[in-house]
Amino acid sequence: MPEARVESTRALRIEAVPGFDREVDVIVVGHGGAGASAAIEAARAGADTLVIERMTRGGGTTALSTGVVYFGGGTRVQKACGFDDPVDEMIKAVRVAAGAHADEAKVRRFCGESVEHFDWICDLGVEFKDSYVAEKTTHPLDDNCLFYSGNELAYPFADAAAPSPRGHKPAHPGEAGGFLMEPFLKSTETAGARVLTDCRAERLIQHEDGRVVGLVARRNDERLHLKARRGVILCAGGFVENETMLRQHAPHLLQCNYKCSTPGDDGLGIRIGAGAGGNPVNMHEGLVLNAYYPPASNLKGILVDRNGQRFINEDAYIGRTSDAIITRADGRAWLVVDDECYGRSQGFHKLAAVEESIEGLERALGLPEGRLVATVASYNTHAARGEDPTFHKAPEHLKPLSSPPFAALDCCTSNSFYGVLTLGGLATDAESRVLTSEQQPIVGLYAAGRNAAGLCLEGRTYASGLSIGDATFFGRVAGRNAAALAPWK
Amino acid sequence: MPEARVESTRALRIEAVPGFDREVDVIVVGHGGAGASAAIEAARAGADTLVIERMTRGGGTTALSTGVVYFGGGTRVQKACGFDDPVDEMIKAVRVAAGAHADEAKVRRFCGESVEHFDWICDLGVEFKDSYVAEKTTHPLDDNCLFYSGNELAYPFADAAAPSPRGHKPAHPGEAGGFLMEPFLKSTETAGARVLTDCRAERLIQHEDGRVVGLVARRNDERLHLKARRGVILCAGGFVENETMLRQHAPHLLQCNYKCSTPGDDGLGIRIGAGAGGNPVNMHEGLVLNAYYPPASNLKGILVDRNGQRFINEDAYIGRTSDAIITRADGRAWLVVDDECYGRSQGFHKLAAVEESIEGLERALGLPEGRLVATVASYNTHAARGEDPTFHKAPEHLKPLSSPPFAALDCCTSNSFYGVLTLGGLATDAESRVLTSEQQPIVGLYAAGRNAAGLCLEGRTYASGLSIGDATFFGRVAGRNAAALAPWK
Repeated sequence: MPEARVESTRALRIEAVPGFDREVDVIVVGHGGAGASAAIEAARAGADTLVIERMTRGGGTTALSTGVVYFGGGTRVQKACGFDDPVDEMIKAVRVAAGAHADEAKVRRFCGESVEHFDWICDLGVEFKDSYVAEKTTHPLDDNCLFYSGNELAYPFADAAAPSPRGHKPAHPGEAGGFLMEPFLKSTETAGARVLTDCRAERLIQHEDGRVVGLVARRNDERLHLKARRGVILCAGGFVENETMLRQHAPHLLQCNYKCSTPGDDGLGIRIGAGAGGNPVNMHEGLVLNAYYPPASNLKGILVDRNGQRFINEDAYIGRTSDAIITRADGRAWLVVDDECYGRSQGFHKLAAVEESIEGLERALGLPEGRLVATVASYNTHAARGEDPTFHKAPEHLKPLSSPPFAALDCCTSNSFYGVLTLGGLATDAESRVLTSEQQPIVGLYAAGRNAAGLCLEGRTYASGLSIGDATFFGRVAGRNAAALAPWK
Repeated sequence: MPEARVESTRALRIEAVPGFDREVDVIVVGHGGAGASAAIEAARAGADTLVIERMTRGGGTTALSTGVVYFGGGTRVQKACGFDDPVDEMIKAVRVAAGAHADEAKVRRFCGESVEHFDWICDLGVEFKDSYVAEKTTHPLDDNCLFYSGNELAYPFADAAAPSPRGHKPAHPGEAGGFLMEPFLKSTETAGARVLTDCRAERLIQHEDGRVVGLVARRNDERLHLKARRGVILCAGGFVENETMLRQHAPHLLQCNYKCSTPGDDGLGIRIGAGAGGNPVNMHEGLVLNAYYPPASNLKGILVDRNGQRFINEDAYIGRTSDAIITRADGRAWLVVDDECYGRSQGFHKLAAVEESIEGLERALGLPEGRLVATVASYNTHAARGEDPTFHKAPEHLKPLSSPPFAALDCCTSNSFYGVLTLGGLATDAESRVLTSEQQPIVGLYAAGRNAAGLCLEGRTYASGLSIGDATFFGRVAGRNAAALAPWK
């Protein structure tokens, strides 16, 4: 699929429409996690719903992910595993996980209705095992379900709320995104929504009063003018595949070497929304993922920069440590481990050096003389007491690095696996309505998933499962609201 | 002046205009450095030119600044002071100073025509002395002119180009922004442009084909529809006065406590441009200024974070060190000096502690035990050899910190003077044309100054004088191009 080159994403005035090829109540752009959720809810509410999807089949980036969804407040799985997780504690946790400038109304709604959302997804046919994985991991590598997927147990988040595991992985070994999405795709059709694949949105159609009333799309060589009596929902993903947009908005993400995306994540949905008055915000933020665990024993190592200095607590979620590697360490860092704690990671890291002494490791890495030695000496002194006064790694991950040989795992962005997705998009409210730069809703226009600046705004505070949680939850909100909007003619 | 609250900044279709109150060739929005330059050039080219200005008098943020302008390539002042500064070296320097993703065409044009631009500003009546200030300073505090205003002599920039001083301060003691702007304001009128003060832009007027053909403005209680036969030039400043926009685009700048701005820098010009299809980019970047020098002897101190670690070479331009304090040190840093190098700075810093030993200073600051002691010991060992292997401060600023008492200047964002301005705005090309998200020029629409994402895109690479240099230079480009555009009717 070639990259979308469009002449203009400025909304077409309805007077300029030569005639509508098709007329429905609700149009959903994109058939990933957000779009499917929107379409299912819109169709179930009785709206004549059409999904247009650029690819030959839906699924989107959700289908390519681990499939982890962030739920809490006492889901069936949480309760079965002995976690009560009061909603108030989930709110406190999500408030910090969503970022310093998270939307309080979105946080409260997402948490307050999380158990209902879990049940809804189960009812679609997605299976989750009533099982808990205690060891710190990026996601259960087998078909187990519940785990601590973010910074819940790490400084400074552990003090913000009573911790509970909220990452829920569907009951499928390995990456479970496809397993998660299949019931969504099937449910889209059983709910009565129609899906037009290989069809690309080009621009919105807008009434003079600002209301969005349809969409121009292209399917093969044919241009389609589609009328949406009630609303259009943009769920077309992020912009990590668009190098120009990355350079303009988030150039630090360009150094990441693995895009968590389909080719459709080229920001077209965001640009189309802006073309009708939508306001792209938070465009500089992304989620960056470099995983030096599992096994969790690697967390007993220390991350150092090219000055031999630590810069973050190593037991933080990888979205946080990876962001720190890029913003604080200029993309150059190593995880220093000893023979006792080192465990082969998932294969994403090479060993930059193995030496019998820290002095030797320092030399082998070309670090300034004495700096790594001083860092390890200071770390070991405190670790022996179960303390980390500088970066506050949790006691269970502290031990002196004293069993040779010592090794450095190469975590440099140039040599290691760095996954990335964007967290910027159209400004929306807790009703999934797209807002203008003057904070006014654009009537008839909704957005969800990475097409929106949604619930989760910062990679450095993120928890795994928040993006799919946000996309599916606020996709549903968009679908219900669009279906309930009074038709414009 | 109350903050601009506007219902919508979406461009008005020309068909909806009830009638034009006034008709000119070129409308310039904002009468600061960029707007005045645009207006002078447009009027001199024969265009009937109208400037609208929100405040009672022009000058803008340029008038509130130090007045430093970045020129090179061998200006009269540079030559008189013995600096040759070949244009090719200036290009190399500006290429890195403008930021990692600077526009090469803008860089080349700005440098290639810099001497002409200097002469043009002199011809307006701005005086610059043929004098050079060798000591590192934020700007000459007296009426002297030429100085190294950026990172030209600092790591890693010193290797990028043969260094020359390019900061030019007008011949006026102290802050010289007003002194700089007076001839611009006067020349606007002598060139024949008319100025409408106390008049606020509301939205652009746009033809169906996308061309911008006028502006809706408000003056007192009157709404004006102004027709621009040739073009509209947006020079209405940045958005540092708009808290909502800062939160949406650049939340890290919210911790700065002094806005380098007039109340007009609320982003209205950027939003108005976006309302006609313009594309705000680089919105996360700002210039942050916390000056712990002059005197230059303070550069012999070391900046440490709350872990007692260094994180940047202290002789870098303050835009770079201040950015590092915010992004690498979480806004908490101290400049540690000894009795020999300490010199009272401009009064922007309190002494957080004064102690007879580094151990005592470490305790007084509440830093983790032994970290500052280790940092100073390592720094002193290398400084005695004239080396700084970790951060590469230049040898002239290196000396062991060994003369008690020792002091810590409080550089925390919460306790110290942090000036800030925004560097994001409408995407433009080297012809100052506003570009859409699809990289197409919007016919009839130009932008310059902080209303645009201009020449200088990063505070961490910035040099003093680049913003006024960019604003006046590309303001002139906009003025000439708008005047030369064929009228639309």
